[in-house]
Amino acid sequence: MKTIKEIGEAAVKAKRELAVLGTADKNKILNDCAEALRKNTDNIIAANKADLANAEKNGMKASLVDRLTLTEKRIEDMAVGLEQIAKLPDPIGEYLNSKTLPNGLIITQKRVPMGVIGIIYEARPNVTSDAFGLCLKAGSAVILRGGSDAINSNKAVIAAFHSVLDINKDIVQLVEDTSRESANEMMKMNGYIDVLIPRGGSGLIQAVVKNSTVPVIETGVGNCHVFVDESADIEKAVNIIVNAKAQRPGVCNAAETMLVHKNIAKDFLPKAAAALREKNVEIRGDKAVKSIVPDVVDALEEDWATEYGDYILAVKVVESVDEAIDHIAKYSTGHSESIVTESYLNSKKFTERVDSAAVYVNASTRFTDGNEFGFGAEIGISTQKLHARGPMGLKELTTTKYIILGEGQIRQ
Amino acid sequence: MKTIKEIGEAAVKAKRELAVLGTADKNKILNDCAEALRKNTDNIIAANKADLANAEKNGMKASLVDRLTLTEKRIEDMAVGLEQIAKLPDPIGEYLNSKTLPNGLIITQKRVPMGVIGIIYEARPNVTSDAFGLCLKAGSAVILRGGSDAINSNKAVIAAFHSVLDINKDIVQLVEDTSRESANEMMKMNGYIDVLIPRGGSGLIQAVVKNSTVPVIETGVGNCHVFVDESADIEKAVNIIVNAKAQRPGVCNAAETMLVHKNIAKDFLPKAAAALREKNVEIRGDKAVKSIVPDVVDALEEDWATEYGDYILAVKVVESVDEAIDHIAKYSTGHSESIVTESYLNSKKFTERVDSAAVYVNASTRFTDGNEFGFGAEIGISTQKLHARGPMGLKELTTTKYIILGEGQIRQ
Repeated sequence: MKTIKEIGEAAVKAKRELAVLGTADKNKILNDCAEALRKNTDNIIAANKADLANAEKNGMKASLVDRLTLTEKRIEDMAVGLEQIAKLPDPIGEYLNSKTLPNGLIITQKRVPMGVIGIIYEARPNVTSDAFGLCLKAGSAVILRGGSDAINSNKAVIAAFHSVLDINKDIVQLVEDTSRESANEMMKMNGYIDVLIPRGGSGLIQAVVKNSTVPVIETGVGNCHVFVDESADIEKAVNIIVNAKAQRPGVCNAAETMLVHKNIAKDFLPKAAAALREKNVEIRGDKAVKSIVPDVVDALEEDWATEYGDYILAVKVVESVDEAIDHIAKYSTGHSESIVTESYLNSKKFTERVDSAAVYVNASTRFTDGNEFGFGAEIGISTQKLHARGPMGLKELTTTKYIILGEGQIRQ
Repeated sequence: MKTIKEIGEAAVKAKRELAVLGTADKNKILNDCAEALRKNTDNIIAANKADLANAEKNGMKASLVDRLTLTEKRIEDMAVGLEQIAKLPDPIGEYLNSKTLPNGLIITQKRVPMGVIGIIYEARPNVTSDAFGLCLKAGSAVILRGGSDAINSNKAVIAAFHSVLDINKDIVQLVEDTSRESANEMMKMNGYIDVLIPRGGSGLIQAVVKNSTVPVIETGVGNCHVFVDESADIEKAVNIIVNAKAQRPGVCNAAETMLVHKNIAKDFLPKAAAALREKNVEIRGDKAVKSIVPDVVDALEEDWATEYGDYILAVKVVESVDEAIDHIAKYSTGHSESIVTESYLNSKKFTERVDSAAVYVNASTRFTDGNEFGFGAEIGISTQKLHARGPMGLKELTTTKYIILGEGQIRQ
């Protein structure tokens, strides 16, 4: 078993071979790897069965077991995912800005690979394939450090890829040591790993943010809000909150709190409550909400700060759009917020003053997603302000360099 | 004296007032602050005298004393710097990408302020003014944590600014507690500070990279290379290496190592050595260099990795452009590298394969600078790959958010 340092050194070598591959070469690798997944479906499912047996022994929760499980269909989806990445435009080589300086130097900013990307994730073996595909297309070597629960599945997926790689196989490496120490060591690999992207629950993400000296992109914690303004179209508002809360409550772009303007509360709340309850959503309301919809759970201070990830919605009546904006500034994680309004001024105020990765007018927060935004694929949703904010596609996995062409210029 | 936490909370309040200011308002503040510097020149110089007296007591090195010293001329330069920032285009509010999705959602990416920027720096009081000016124009509140050696000067500069601010004065705050603890506490202010930029020597920068949980932009360590290819124009090559090494050896974009193709070494090295020695540059050469220019110091392994910041140049003869590229991959800090060549193919290979922030053909590495690149001003030169790479102007001090306009869309 390689040490983390050896893995890092191998990745640095491999990145240089990868960086000079053309688009056609990279696409061929992606398509070959898709075929390799299909050919090795039986091996991968057998390895996954071993993981599932361990999971049963360890009493893993049913929802996690579901995420860990690979089926023929899911392996086919992984293969199709790689083929789709092959079809996306190559982000590498784009020239962003070019100009001639007064001294005749031609300066241009070129999009180039990041180099080595590290991904730390939990027990979803499909991430192994998706993350490799995106990093490869973006021209970077990848070091994958999945959870111990999926180690057999991950090894089988990587073995399938390695079986068809003609290029240096270290363009994709799996950290087989799934101890906490190996993760911590990986977070200190400055000079080897250019960026670390954690994918998983907030515990994992916070641990990486806290311990990593390698630059990190923080992803995916979403305490998202829908604000129903006094001028809202009530039917639109009901549809949007039901969709934002209940279409898929476990994901980061689902709404957790609804704010309702006091002047529309009486008309809107009973309808919204009825529609939400039809979807089995529990409502936790403040006093003003209770006075209109009596049979709701009391909302406590901590409810405003909670990402339930479940069929629960906190609801609060506010005095004004300003109070809504203040509430969001205080409690939001900066992921996605939406205003439902027919007022031009309030839509403008809300989109200008709410400081989140995605700010919506009259639409569900559930659209914050690389595929929905038209990026073709995504590696995660950044909730930090550095480098990338919002869904991260291929472009967000690259960096740039300046190329300056002269004819002997020296600085005066 | 405010605690770091109180400073952070005040900055978060102030950033919201600042974020909605228009360009004219921000420019007025910059011009008012420039005037305030001029009006308070005597106060600032008196405060600086106190710092200089302490510096003398503490036996500060002459070069550092020079950086610490403020004169009427230097304060005027600071004022002019703020006025120049007022004249630069406002980066905020730019729309980067706009499109209509198939479902009718209009999605656009808007350039917005970072929020709160932290700057940790050493004993250069002009940074206090420059960093404030750039952050303000970029729409962000700034927390300045200068070195203890300049504390009186920094206080006087900030007092001058505060005396003319009509807006919340916490848009620019100085950390008056210059203990190591205050710096460490500042590095853990996630949720308050959006990005930390260290400015100073490599010790300071490494300490921030190592200890900060707030996202950091690493700046300014430069082990820069000039490679003289076999096809180089010798006169151009001599001019470029003399400029890159000796025009201002103490800065990060100065060259530290020269690589020379073996086929040009005999013709080129004697001329280069003579020209470099005229500028009092000490040459440290490998065996092949010594065989051509006998009276040079032996270069040791550690020389290839050293940023001298002084009139010293390491020189090595290489077999090929590939060896030069490999040497740079091994020892460079990824700042700036230049090839001197008349070969189209080698210029292409070098610019494609050298993975540094700025890669030059036939020009001095000394051009890596925000002003030279036409950005108008810079906060530093990023040597990391995340967010910004190379000179950082106003644009690099901003982030983006997505604004999505709908008419009731929900996700299917």
